Amino acid sequence: MYFSSWLSQLYRGFSRPIGRTTQPIWVPLSRNLMLGSQRKMPEFSSFVARTNTCGELRPSHLGQEVTLCGWIQYRRQNIFLVLRDCHGLVQVVIPQDESAASVKKVLCEAPLESVVRISGTVISRPPGQENPKMPTGAIEIKVKTAELLNSCRKLPFEIKDFVKKTEALRLQYRYLDLRSAQMQHNLRLRSQMVMRMREYLCNLHGFVDVETPTLFKRTPGGAKEFLVPSREPGKFYSLPQSPQQFKQLLMIGGLDRYFQVARCYRDEGSRPDRQPEFTQIDIEMSFVDQTGIQSLTEGLLQYAWPGDRDPVVTPFPSMPFAEALATYGTDKPDTRFGMKITDISDVFRNTKSEFLQDSLSKPQGTVKAICVREGAKYLKRKDIKSIRKCATDHFNQEVLPVFLKANSNWNAPVAKFIEEEHGLELTRMMELQEDDVLLLTAGEHAKACSLLGKLRLECADLLEGRGVVLRDPTQFSFLWVVDFPLFFPKEDNPKELESAHHPFTAPHPSDGHLIYTEPEKVRSQHYDLVLNGHEIGGGSIRIHDAELQRYILSTVLKG
Amino acid sequence: MYFSSWLSQLYRGFSRPIGRTTQPIWVPLSRNLMLGSQRKMPEFSSFVARTNTCGELRPSHLGQEVTLCGWIQYRRQNIFLVLRDCHGLVQVVIPQDESAASVKKVLCEAPLESVVRISGTVISRPPGQENPKMPTGAIEIKVKTAELLNSCRKLPFEIKDFVKKTEALRLQYRYLDLRSAQMQHNLRLRSQMVMRMREYLCNLHGFVDVETPTLFKRTPGGAKEFLVPSREPGKFYSLPQSPQQFKQLLMIGGLDRYFQVARCYRDEGSRPDRQPEFTQIDIEMSFVDQTGIQSLTEGLLQYAWPGDRDPVVTPFPSMPFAEALATYGTDKPDTRFGMKITDISDVFRNTKSEFLQDSLSKPQGTVKAICVREGAKYLKRKDIKSIRKCATDHFNQEVLPVFLKANSNWNAPVAKFIEEEHGLELTRMMELQEDDVLLLTAGEHAKACSLLGKLRLECADLLEGRGVVLRDPTQFSFLWVVDFPLFFPKEDNPKELESAHHPFTAPHPSDGHLIYTEPEKVRSQHYDLVLNGHEIGGGSIRIHDAELQRYILSTVLKG
Repeated sequence: MYFSSWLSQLYRGFSRPIGRTTQPIWVPLSRNLMLGSQRKMPEFSSFVARTNTCGELRPSHLGQEVTLCGWIQYRRQNIFLVLRDCHGLVQVVIPQDESAASVKKVLCEAPLESVVRISGTVISRPPGQENPKMPTGAIEIKVKTAELLNSCRKLPFEIKDFVKKTEALRLQYRYLDLRSAQMQHNLRLRSQMVMRMREYLCNLHGFVDVETPTLFKRTPGGAKEFLVPSREPGKFYSLPQSPQQFKQLLMIGGLDRYFQVARCYRDEGSRPDRQPEFTQIDIEMSFVDQTGIQSLTEGLLQYAWPGDRDPVVTPFPSMPFAEALATYGTDKPDTRFGMKITDISDVFRNTKSEFLQDSLSKPQGTVKAICVREGAKYLKRKDIKSIRKCATDHFNQEVLPVFLKANSNWNAPVAKFIEEEHGLELTRMMELQEDDVLLLTAGEHAKACSLLGKLRLECADLLEGRGVVLRDPTQFSFLWVVDFPLFFPKEDNPKELESAHHPFTAPHPSDGHLIYTEPEKVRSQHYDLVLNGHEIGGGSIRIHDAELQRYILSTVLKG
Repeated sequence: MYFSSWLSQLYRGFSRPIGRTTQPIWVPLSRNLMLGSQRKMPEFSSFVARTNTCGELRPSHLGQEVTLCGWIQYRRQNIFLVLRDCHGLVQVVIPQDESAASVKKVLCEAPLESVVRISGTVISRPPGQENPKMPTGAIEIKVKTAELLNSCRKLPFEIKDFVKKTEALRLQYRYLDLRSAQMQHNLRLRSQMVMRMREYLCNLHGFVDVETPTLFKRTPGGAKEFLVPSREPGKFYSLPQSPQQFKQLLMIGGLDRYFQVARCYRDEGSRPDRQPEFTQIDIEMSFVDQTGIQSLTEGLLQYAWPGDRDPVVTPFPSMPFAEALATYGTDKPDTRFGMKITDISDVFRNTKSEFLQDSLSKPQGTVKAICVREGAKYLKRKDIKSIRKCATDHFNQEVLPVFLKANSNWNAPVAKFIEEEHGLELTRMMELQEDDVLLLTAGEHAKACSLLGKLRLECADLLEGRGVVLRDPTQFSFLWVVDFPLFFPKEDNPKELESAHHPFTAPHPSDGHLIYTEPEKVRSQHYDLVLNGHEIGGGSIRIHDAELQRYILSTVLKG
């Protein structure tokens, strides 16, 4: 079992929208991030020169002498200064009396983003001057001493959330961008969720965290690997795609329960959801079945989930691969919204359309459709055009748009082939209403499904671009996809079989006997974990029977 | 601050001696490894097909129906079988009655090390048959069902602690060697200590665990780095020696408290205490001083220390670099034993030995000695010869052995130069007694110290080879070495200075003013953590003052 790329999903979901206020709103990160309410707060100011963090000060601190270290975020008329550290902002009153001239000088002359240490007293803000949007907005600091630790030169951009920066500029000055509330939040969230996962695995369930080497031999098959020249000419190490081989050896070694937050490498260029190096939670258990590892995983996510979010509901729904393909046209369905694929072959069983008849007469021939609710309101002519182009470009397949008009008449090229009773049947099957648009295609089952699965997501993008909310970005729809086929016909020689995942995946317990008779029908014990349409994890029960493994390698796969 | 190579030290100290019993003694690892007694035991059998682990069964389980999975460790006369899993051993009674013939067949025919699943009842052993050496020795399992999960072929060695294997064989069959009690213990100990460190840093003190990239640019200076060819011809990534640059950027980014269990790479070949890839605990804090980071580190080790060991006593003793050099001849003294270096220059101030006079008249010229207690009893002629050879080979320096005879006479080449009052003075200074051997050398301070520091360890090895226990292997002597010089004269041009560690290390607060006048006298805020003569960690306070940093780079180091 592994998890990866789950974190970017979570960031997306957990991101707090940044409002258009002129003052950045710092939610107290530390409190927000405390996972599980019973836990003690960490001591954020142990061992250091400050007594408190800027962001933690509240009316309960009134009268306390504090020492704070932080960055000058903001200064108003040389009277107020807002100091920032990793836990938030606090307002500091710059002293105006003669005797504190040196303190005033430090605080007024230091450029914004300079690092200072101040000490002073926590006092109430004068009545009416409280800022309820700011967690520390009820208090301010009356300064006694101030020391400039480091002066700041002019920065390429202001460290304020409302100041828009291009991504290129942010990446160029990554070390400055990290000062933003959002980036601080992301890094802390990741740290704490991974820590909670470790607690769950190590402390609650006796897993052993084993670090495996990264300078190793090549693994045959799989992704392209990075090579590292060794000291011996002509010999190379390989950076691992995953700790696969090591963890299997650890299981043979009797480790029983292994996990690792493992760095993996793939020399395949970067994509939005794939980087040359990435991290996955890598898990291996002895004596477990698929239900066991799924329960473990669900418990893991539930335990690691941030305490300020709706808790994760378990068990996660489960869907066989065949159903995912037929209903969503993909093995990683985004189940946050419907627009499911419907098989409407029966409606056209006796159609006069030669094109449809022709498609239906072929093996696995079908007519299928998705319904874009109120599509006629939102989809423009150019959208339909681009949808049809996408179908021909990527799937070499026609897709026909069917508009249901107010008078329940059909407005489509195929309309003439839809007899009245079939039209009614279609309306009933797909629960069609006025202004709905049907996207209809005919062809081989898997291909038609894949096409409509792709168009389903395209349409969702288009509708959301027009302001319709289909996929709630704060919703987390977990889904197990199970019962994958164990083998697929080879693309270049469909009479031979190849492993759908890898040759060590165990067959489904109910299908064991089919291995010897109809191996192409055998389902596997491979399972994927899908979140909002992204595969975030997966794994399989391995074959532990040497004889079966040998049979599969030598006879089924003709290795 | 970083830690590395500390774990091998700990293994050495924590290793349980393996007795010469015919039955391996499995200490219940899980209990032993529970760090901190108040913690709840992990559920080692959650989610899987067993109800219990083999090693956890006790009389409190009597009468319980259990299912166990494990390896056949041992079989006696087809009546008893010992089953092993990662938590220990349990005795299983093979049923002899006709009705259980199939169970008997499975258990008697499976080769040793085969994997089986059994279910049965926990029963008391018959009186007199208890095995007090075995944690589960009071009970045994009356089997009901048995299933062979995987049969074992003949192995290259038996998985029994008392079976001696060469290291080469163990490494060739690493996955089998991992089944040994000792290796299981080591891997679990590491996992749990690192987990405790994470708890201390993350949960108690608010550190953020940040994973930094390993495919990065070259770092100038330092160790030789591994290169990784990129997809762009002629361009290479470099695997980092440490996350140094990243963690500095994270501090600039306001992360405040960073840590990482970081993989580091050095392309410098393997040595017993150095591997091409290794792991260090990498820590960085803002607004901290040397005392703060030392306290944090002491607390970290104390918190992570295994509960079944004597607790770590803090604060650790601290020793200036100059004292470590003068007393132990090294910056990483093994303080588990004495045999300290003594400066006896004064005794020879007026000696008639031209050789000694000559040495003393040079700058930094000294006469120094270490005393090997009862050396005359243990050191053989060939030992003395090899000690003297070591001195000339490695230090190009003479060392003179001086034996104190029963009659308090001196037996040594220099004896004639030791006048009676000086002899008495020497005896008093070094607390000499009969049979003690003095190793005496004359020369420049640092060189004489280094030589005697090396000989001190050589002598310890020699004495321990003769059965004298000088360094208790179960003792952990932590020591801070502090106040290193900030700069050293360059070897090839002693008029110029170079950084003792790196140019970002801050000067000692008391020596700040000397930077501008006598930089060679400035002590640094660099500190090393030494355990039993090995450097296991170290770090420094960094310069945060841009002006000072600029002065050091451009003027002191003439960069």
